[in-house]
Amino acid sequence: MRDVSIIGIGQTPVGEHWDFGLRHLALEAVREAANDARIDHADALYVGNMSAGLIGGQMNLGALIADFVGLRGIEAVTVEASSASGAAALRQAYVAVASGVIDFAIVVGVEKLTDVMGSEAVSAQLTATDSDYEAAHGVTPLSAAAMLMRRYMHEYDAVLTDFAAFSVNAHANAATNPNAMFHNKITPDSFARAPMVADPINLFDTAPAADGAAALVLAPTDWARQRGDGTLRIAASSVATDALALHDRHDPLWLRAAELSANKAYQQAGLSPKDIHLFELHDSCTILATMSLEASGFASRGMGLSFVARNGIGRDGQLPISTLGGLKGRGDPGGATGVYQIVEVAQQLRGEAGPNQIAKARVGMAQNLGATGATAVTHILVRDE
Amino acid sequence: MRDVSIIGIGQTPVGEHWDFGLRHLALEAVREAANDARIDHADALYVGNMSAGLIGGQMNLGALIADFVGLRGIEAVTVEASSASGAAALRQAYVAVASGVIDFAIVVGVEKLTDVMGSEAVSAQLTATDSDYEAAHGVTPLSAAAMLMRRYMHEYDAVLTDFAAFSVNAHANAATNPNAMFHNKITPDSFARAPMVADPINLFDTAPAADGAAALVLAPTDWARQRGDGTLRIAASSVATDALALHDRHDPLWLRAAELSANKAYQQAGLSPKDIHLFELHDSCTILATMSLEASGFASRGMGLSFVARNGIGRDGQLPISTLGGLKGRGDPGGATGVYQIVEVAQQLRGEAGPNQIAKARVGMAQNLGATGATAVTHILVRDE
Repeated sequence: MRDVSIIGIGQTPVGEHWDFGLRHLALEAVREAANDARIDHADALYVGNMSAGLIGGQMNLGALIADFVGLRGIEAVTVEASSASGAAALRQAYVAVASGVIDFAIVVGVEKLTDVMGSEAVSAQLTATDSDYEAAHGVTPLSAAAMLMRRYMHEYDAVLTDFAAFSVNAHANAATNPNAMFHNKITPDSFARAPMVADPINLFDTAPAADGAAALVLAPTDWARQRGDGTLRIAASSVATDALALHDRHDPLWLRAAELSANKAYQQAGLSPKDIHLFELHDSCTILATMSLEASGFASRGMGLSFVARNGIGRDGQLPISTLGGLKGRGDPGGATGVYQIVEVAQQLRGEAGPNQIAKARVGMAQNLGATGATAVTHILVRDE
Repeated sequence: MRDVSIIGIGQTPVGEHWDFGLRHLALEAVREAANDARIDHADALYVGNMSAGLIGGQMNLGALIADFVGLRGIEAVTVEASSASGAAALRQAYVAVASGVIDFAIVVGVEKLTDVMGSEAVSAQLTATDSDYEAAHGVTPLSAAAMLMRRYMHEYDAVLTDFAAFSVNAHANAATNPNAMFHNKITPDSFARAPMVADPINLFDTAPAADGAAALVLAPTDWARQRGDGTLRIAASSVATDALALHDRHDPLWLRAAELSANKAYQQAGLSPKDIHLFELHDSCTILATMSLEASGFASRGMGLSFVARNGIGRDGQLPISTLGGLKGRGDPGGATGVYQIVEVAQQLRGEAGPNQIAKARVGMAQNLGATGATAVTHILVRDE
């Protein structure tokens, strides 16, 4: 096993890209990442995607995108783990480069979710639930999150506005991120007045489905150092799982997969939650953000909301999260989201986050959840001088 | 990098499993493989599947199947490369165990293709073509293969019955494989009289879409040796790609991805085509079998059919292929097919192929093609005493 670094990052703006095909979005992100890395070849491509077959009628994106970005012939596959597909693709690339099998790997997360609406869009989302035991009975990912949030409010005596801080922070950070979908700020008051979507989840509580692509170039850390670059090292990479159906989990209010993957990541990196300077978590709904903070060891059980209130999650807080807008403000392009999170951690650790820059950011963590936490992928990046 | 061995194999019969769910099929194969390996735990699960989202409305099979087989919590993802998904999943598992990140990995290829018919089935198949430039104009995987076969017959002066030997051999071998879908033998005459499906491809020329699951358990070779087992070592594992759309390929009659992946595999194993004792190739249509033989170095360009006629592909031939029925006779369960191929090579090398046993089989190769050869995954297994 050798150390692996991220030597290039790229992203398209997140939004409704009706004028671009899936492969074109991927090309934009890969080209930017390859230019950033100053490489013109790679040995393998790992694509993170969850919905192209269902929404675009296109699978085998590995071969398709490898060809379209000018790398015809190289090893290429698609990795899928619902909305954790992007980080799961990075995990495969990391292992391949760490093993020595591959020297230069490209990871691209790409998704087009806004080409369809209504029942077609919901059908695609339903594939992330347990189709036999949840979808068949009308449970959607959003209604599952709503049930979790309702139960959390009951168990821990919380009210809707207690969750506002996540969305207010996300929109505040997105406002100055040119790649974010939303640039409007929201307030606790406007959060409280937002129309209800799936009670108790309202419009400002949940992230928008979006289109976008983000890409990474991975290389051996030694190679990057020999080139004279300071490096952005992947100090930890881990995947863990839980039951897909909420009712099958030992405790639906505890993200066991997130706990397992975070603990594996801390162990691999030799770090603990207090060493993390920023945390890009999976805030597709504020309840998942809350539970992710708890499962990852930043707050104890049931204390996620008070952690946020006391310690702060803004740029100057104790634990900045969603520093470039998160899923809520940057937008949630499904299987691409996990790669955006890593790109954003890299922006912070490289000191390239512009007005969103976190001071003294040297260790960043990202956690990508799939299927309401049935899959959790955690990465820790460290900037070596 | 450490050596990796296959210590367990499992499979369900291939057929129309309308009474079993996807997860149940996977469980059957995984249970058999785990029992065969004499293990009760694994560190990671790699699922090969191409159509569960499109046909069963179920994605994130990694978490779903990990949970269902009793391994809740472990690392698990789905790997997709169209009909090469199964072998592509093995590739990821191989790299993970070789790297030392994972000690015990399970690979399961699982697919249910027969729950839908007609336009729904074709819609799922179309995702394996280039949706913008092929599917949109009416090209299906089968019609693409038909065009290749027509052109091959023109270029190399072949007639339909020249291809019969592949299907006659596949059915002869399937007849004595209890896990095969077909147990009827066919003859060159019945082949010649079969109803046309997509001219020049007739019913006996192409493999049936089917349901099934096959599984493998991987472990470090040293561990297997210490346990006192003779081992079945993965001597080579490689993935290569080509343009998805046939008209974008430099030479549509040459499977460039198959050539690249076979050559990488020979190089890794330190072997050449003459060292291969049996070859499980991707005979979804006889034209692909022919082109696979050529691209993999067994026959020179345009000489695939005469290689078959002269050297023999039966159990006593110079290069036994489809030794347990191949896609044509065993059946073609999409993303599971690549794992079935490996299970069958393992059966041969372990001397457990029953009436289908090839004498003195010590080195076996399998090649899994995705999307009419846009993806090719080649593995070479070697039995160490």
